[in-house]
Amino acid sequence: MAAKSKILVIGGTGYIGKFIIKASTEAGHPTFVLVREKTVSDPQKSILIETFKTSGATLLYGDLNDHESLVKALKEVDVVISTVGGQQIDDQVKLIAAIKEAGNIKRFLPSEFGIDVDRHNTVEPVISFFDKKVKIRRTIEAEEIPYTYVSSNAFAGYFLPTLVQQDVTAPPRDKVTILGDGNVAGVYVSEEDVGTYTIKAVDDQRTLNKSLYLRPPENVLTFNQLVSLWENKIKSTLEKVYIPEDQLLKNIQESPFPANFMLAICHAMLVKDVTSNYELDPSFGVEASEIYPEVKYTTADNYLNAFV
Amino acid sequence: MAAKSKILVIGGTGYIGKFIIKASTEAGHPTFVLVREKTVSDPQKSILIETFKTSGATLLYGDLNDHESLVKALKEVDVVISTVGGQQIDDQVKLIAAIKEAGNIKRFLPSEFGIDVDRHNTVEPVISFFDKKVKIRRTIEAEEIPYTYVSSNAFAGYFLPTLVQQDVTAPPRDKVTILGDGNVAGVYVSEEDVGTYTIKAVDDQRTLNKSLYLRPPENVLTFNQLVSLWENKIKSTLEKVYIPEDQLLKNIQESPFPANFMLAICHAMLVKDVTSNYELDPSFGVEASEIYPEVKYTTADNYLNAFV
Repeated sequence: MAAKSKILVIGGTGYIGKFIIKASTEAGHPTFVLVREKTVSDPQKSILIETFKTSGATLLYGDLNDHESLVKALKEVDVVISTVGGQQIDDQVKLIAAIKEAGNIKRFLPSEFGIDVDRHNTVEPVISFFDKKVKIRRTIEAEEIPYTYVSSNAFAGYFLPTLVQQDVTAPPRDKVTILGDGNVAGVYVSEEDVGTYTIKAVDDQRTLNKSLYLRPPENVLTFNQLVSLWENKIKSTLEKVYIPEDQLLKNIQESPFPANFMLAICHAMLVKDVTSNYELDPSFGVEASEIYPEVKYTTADNYLNAFV
Repeated sequence: MAAKSKILVIGGTGYIGKFIIKASTEAGHPTFVLVREKTVSDPQKSILIETFKTSGATLLYGDLNDHESLVKALKEVDVVISTVGGQQIDDQVKLIAAIKEAGNIKRFLPSEFGIDVDRHNTVEPVISFFDKKVKIRRTIEAEEIPYTYVSSNAFAGYFLPTLVQQDVTAPPRDKVTILGDGNVAGVYVSEEDVGTYTIKAVDDQRTLNKSLYLRPPENVLTFNQLVSLWENKIKSTLEKVYIPEDQLLKNIQESPFPANFMLAICHAMLVKDVTSNYELDPSFGVEASEIYPEVKYTTADNYLNAFV
């Protein structure tokens, strides 16, 4: 078996980046993290950066806006995983330019880690946001950079601890708000599993120039199924407050940014079925739990046990 | 007195756009609204567009991505007000290019309507978002386009009906969450007043190439003052739950986009004092209620009466 690819993570101190770095070092990949000098001195981020070093990752100083630093960092590695945040999606064109110049990158994973932006049924302002990711995809393809797009759906750690209720710190015990009728399927994947599956994909020819969909079958659940799971655990029936789609669309329309964005993401994930609006086709994508059956993923059912 | 300027609004179906259009037609400005053909057939937006026509505004078909349509629309008017949403801030470079080509625009108001992006004390991911608005400002100035930047602070209609509590539809009656210590000043301005002040500014030499700050003195209130106002109205004392700044910064750090953005906006508005971190200076800005004392603005106190 060939040596493990060297991996560079850009955006490592963001939400999902730290899980990718952890999975990468644990899988034995030489792991590099691009950091800005000012980030290292940020009190919130410096703690996180220490954990990267402890886990064996190597810090490389650089910045998306500093072309030379990017090219230099890229020349050290084989694979680049971008986990930059929602405000930096466009800036990845600079990373693509550096990848072209470096010339040695065997796989690029742009910042995705959500819904498939080429196949969705969302409303504004999320459409415009997804279009930025689409533009990055088309640029990668036009530049003929080898890629994998990770469509990981909903982060379990963000949505399950509150059952997608806002302004609470634990799942509801008396009343739950349900967007739409609660009968369409969502997919919840733990952040650790997003890291594990992503790292498995980087050296895998089956994911080359394809999307990797994370749809572990036990975690494809309607919101009503999720509420039932929770009700069974707490042995209590919750009062259900339904917000019809029309009302939600009106709320999106009548809220300023960023509240409208937040509501439109919930609309996309909980009212529009993210799994059944298209069939996975080997021509463009593969499903992670199918090609990596050895991964014992965290089920939503198990995840919720921590909060009973 | 000269004839009133002809005004073109771009982004009219967004959150604040409709209030600008209403103020413009009511003040007797010939008012034009750029709309995309597909927007007119959107069931949610078509109702709104009908109200524009009823109020006397003229629809012009066009799109930020269609240069010719932009130039053609610009040639009809004197003033351009952009109220495009948070995902379209960057795209305003296309509008700037069209304004340069048209050559007849006497005043451009880019999409701002929030905190002064040149003078703030925010954290990521809001910094990156504000940087997009800053870049638009610098482009306008470099192109020597006459401008006014409207820093309107917090929308009253968005924040006051819930006292900035999430997932509720009325102000709290038993418990209120307070970010930080609640002792820094915020500014709440009704959307109608944002429209009125903005339209007053377009033909005013005092706001030429300056920022117009909306800080009506009775609406500059700490969160604790706001809670007191409300408690007096409902003749009841609320339980206060404080979230210290450190905890809020940690929550921002540990939330995915867009939740981190939402929290960082609240941090900017409720924990960092938006009024006292710089003094207004006539060299760069004027305060709206000072230069337009004839406007009887809606006070936060009055605003809350509707919810008792």
